[in-house]
Order: sequence, then structure tokens, then C-alpha cells
Amino acid sequence: MEQQKITKIYPPPAKTLEKGEIYENLSPRKHLKSRPYVMINMVSSLDGKVSLGGKASGIGSPTDRLMMRELRSMADAVMVGAGTLRAERMDLGVTEPMAEARREKKLREQPLILLPTSTGDLPLDTNLIGLASKDRKNVVVLAGSKVQKNSREVLQRSATVIEAPSTEDGNVDIERTLELLMQEHDIGTLLVEGGPKLNHALITAGLVDELFLTLAPKLIGGYQGSNLNIIEGETLPQRAEEQTLELLSVHLVESELFLRYRFRDVGQSHL
Amino acid sequence: MEQQKITKIYPPPAKTLEKGEIYENLSPRKHLKSRPYVMINMVSSLDGKVSLGGKASGIGSPTDRLMMRELRSMADAVMVGAGTLRAERMDLGVTEPMAEARREKKLREQPLILLPTSTGDLPLDTNLIGLASKDRKNVVVLAGSKVQKNSREVLQRSATVIEAPSTEDGNVDIERTLELLMQEHDIGTLLVEGGPKLNHALITAGLVDELFLTLAPKLIGGYQGSNLNIIEGETLPQRAEEQTLELLSVHLVESELFLRYRFRDVGQSHL
Repeated sequence: MEQQKITKIYPPPAKTLEKGEIYENLSPRKHLKSRPYVMINMVSSLDGKVSLGGKASGIGSPTDRLMMRELRSMADAVMVGAGTLRAERMDLGVTEPMAEARREKKLREQPLILLPTSTGDLPLDTNLIGLASKDRKNVVVLAGSKVQKNSREVLQRSATVIEAPSTEDGNVDIERTLELLMQEHDIGTLLVEGGPKLNHALITAGLVDELFLTLAPKLIGGYQGSNLNIIEGETLPQRAEEQTLELLSVHLVESELFLRYRFRDVGQSHL
Repeated sequence: MEQQKITKIYPPPAKTLEKGEIYENLSPRKHLKSRPYVMINMVSSLDGKVSLGGKASGIGSPTDRLMMRELRSMADAVMVGAGTLRAERMDLGVTEPMAEARREKKLREQPLILLPTSTGDLPLDTNLIGLASKDRKNVVVLAGSKVQKNSREVLQRSATVIEAPSTEDGNVDIERTLELLMQEHDIGTLLVEGGPKLNHALITAGLVDELFLTLAPKLIGGYQGSNLNIIEGETLPQRAEEQTLELLSVHLVESELFLRYRFRDVGQSHL
């Protein structure tokens, strides 16, 4: 895939980047003690839509799709919500050169693929594509306690299934699940690729450190309630500083913007 | 109001701007023959929301509110949808120094305020605030043919009421209304400040030339269907180039981005 010219425009000075360089310094800004450093990556239209006809594919450019893989290749694990995987076929892998670079660093070729589910309804065989069969063991279903035994058995045929810490009603307890991922599975950095409900749950629990937002230069539209935004759930409390993000960098490829934000004051209690 | 430091980061080189300079070159890129040059200005959160509890106020910073007035002061007229005016109290004016600058250029102090309505339900007295009574004559209601005579009479007490070209069912025909505004009222540049339905109607009719989008560094959330996006209506057809916008400039104030886009190939037939 040929990559378009990338220009870093913030922080100044503006600089045209060499291929694949955009997020070379992606090491977490902080190493947290009790949970992974969590980054959300989403692509949105100018009118805030992250899906078109139920699917995210087609909003970002080829460069965005390459950047997505680059971000993945720098994380220990990639997490996607069950609803997002149900909505469309996804290739959650990295490119071969990225896998090679990981091997050189003595990392597993592919980051772990983490799929939290409270229902067990995960179309792994049809919708999780592009994985070599040897990589299937790196697909980890984080199953809430209410997932039925027979669903669990089906999932185990094509993935590793872990019982996730759960709430009283059997849903995945996302905060305790992140703690488990760090403590027992050595996940220091986690990239989350949506969907909007998973993003919202993580953000409202104060578990997100950074947001990578690609702003595609297009409009999608739709009536209220059709096509999704990057987060979905209760309106967030609007506190002056706490809900404000800090812009870390801006890159530009043609008219598409690659924005990186830090959540302020999040995770302080975990240091 | 003290203005924060504004940095232009695109096009490069990055440059810190003097007060009020951000959109000094706002003259329309093209003078159109049959309709005004149309610019939409909106402020959105990172998750694409333009309202919070039904209101737009509170999303942008004080700098955004000043930029909004600056954009207004450079247009011949400002248009706001009736639903937006019903939703909250709005001051659609400019600052005194901007009014002074307009007087020096032999322009009317305030751009015309244009309010298209198909129903006549416009709370002018309660929600259109901050206008001196001498400026009331510059408030122009563009009434669709189905607006009742008694509504029209009420509106005439506090505004100029014009019968807008209408569709067969009596709604405002926005394209012919823009043509009328140019031909009979000498409106060469029009700034539109929403709401989402008016924006959508204008965009789908191919009547918009530029989009000014302020991206506030915050997240708002809400369930599907709550809180609005910058456009609302049918999902737009996704044509490769036509629906793609071109990024013209990026300014930054703290972590708030001021983005300016051009609609590609729009208005060509009007040249």
C-alpha cells in the first residue's frame, strides 16, 4: 500500500515525515501500576460519525488504515467490543514488516486480541479475519460470568477463553478486567478500537489515558440515532477541567487530520 | 474579553497571531452569480456533539465565541434555523469594535439576521437577545407560504417579514430563497450557524461553500439520538471526491482547534 505524504503540523515546526514515522514515539507517557496504559483509536467524519450503515470501514483513508495497524503494533494488546465485531468483518492484525519489528524486539508477532463479552455472542469464525491459524491462540475472549457454558465451549474452539471479573449481574467488570490483564497477563499498553459503548464505559470509569482521533474530511449525516458517534451512553458530566482533553499532536495527510489527545488527570490515582 | 494566544498551524509555517487576526482574509474565495457564498460555522465536541441538553452554548471556549462574532462581522448576513432559536436564547450580534470597522467600510453595523421558518414558531422577543431596538429592522424572518397570517402579524411587530419562495406544501424553498437574497437583498456572503437540519438541507442541495468547524477538546456523550451532530437528515451519498472536503487552515488556541474546510466542486455551476 502506498502511503501518502504525512506532515506533522503540531507541535511546530511543521515537518514532512518519512514513511511510517507518524507515531514512532508511542511509548506510554506513564507506566501505571495497577492497570494497562489505555489508548482509544477511532476514525470519525467531520460530523462525528464513526459508522456508516453499521460499519466503520470506509470512513478513513488507506493511510488511516495503515496508521491503525501501526498503533496496534506498538501495543501489547488490542481490544474491540463484541458489538463492533458483530457489525462487520474485521482484520485486527498488523503488517508483516510490523510483525518482523516485533519479533526483533522479542515480542509476540501480533498483539493479543481481547474481546470482552457479557453474552458470548461473538462471530469469531466469520468476522475475525486475516489471522493465521497459529495466531488464533492470541485471540482472548474475556467472558462475563453470565456467558452460558455452551457458548463458552463454542468460543474455545477458535480462541482462548478467560473468565473475566464480573459484576453481580454477570456482565464484564471492565475495571477489574483491566487490572487482571496487567497483573496476570502482563499487558502494559492496551489499544481500544471501540465500539462507542466500550469507549464510553472505559471513559466514564476514568480508565482511558489517550485518544487518537482521525478526522476524515467528509460528512456522513443520518437522522438522530442512526450512525454512531465515538462514544455512546449517558451524557458525561461536564466538569471544567477534568473532562477537557489536551491536544498532544496533529498530523495531516491530504485533508485528513490525525489528532492525539491526552485525558487530563486520569490515572493519577494509579501511579 | 481577553483572548488567548492563537497559533496558526496550517498551512505552515506555524505562527502566533495577533489579536483578532485569525480569519482576516475571509473574503469569499469566489463571487457567485446566482446565490450568496455560503459558509457554515459550528462548534463540536470530539465526539461530534453540537448540543448539550438541547443547547449549543457551553461547548466552545470564550475564544470560540469571539471567533464566531468575527465570522459574523465579515458576512453580509447570518442565518439561523428556527429550531435552533427555539432551543435557546441567542445573541447573534458582533462586538462594538467589529461594528465600528463595518461602519468605516460603509456597511450596516450588524449583518442582517435571517430566520427561515415554515411554521412561524419563532420566539423573537424572548430568545433573540442583545439587539438594540434600532437593529430590530435588520432581523428578517423568511416565512414559508404556509405560515399563518396571525403568526406573520405577530412576527412583524419585532422583525421584517419576507415571504420566502416556498415548495408546494408551503415550506421554505431554501435554494430559491438564497437566490432571492442575492438578487433582491444584495447578500453576497452568508454565514449559517445551524441547526443541524438547516445545515443538512443546504449541504444536500449543494449550496454550501465552506465549513468552519471548531473542535472543542471535550467529550459529551449521550445515548443514540440524544444531543445533536452538525448535520441531521438522510445519510449523505458517499461519492469518492464530491463528498470530500478540502482542509484550508487550522488554528489552535490551547487545545481547541479551529478548522476551515472548502466543499469541493460545489457552486461550479454558479460561476
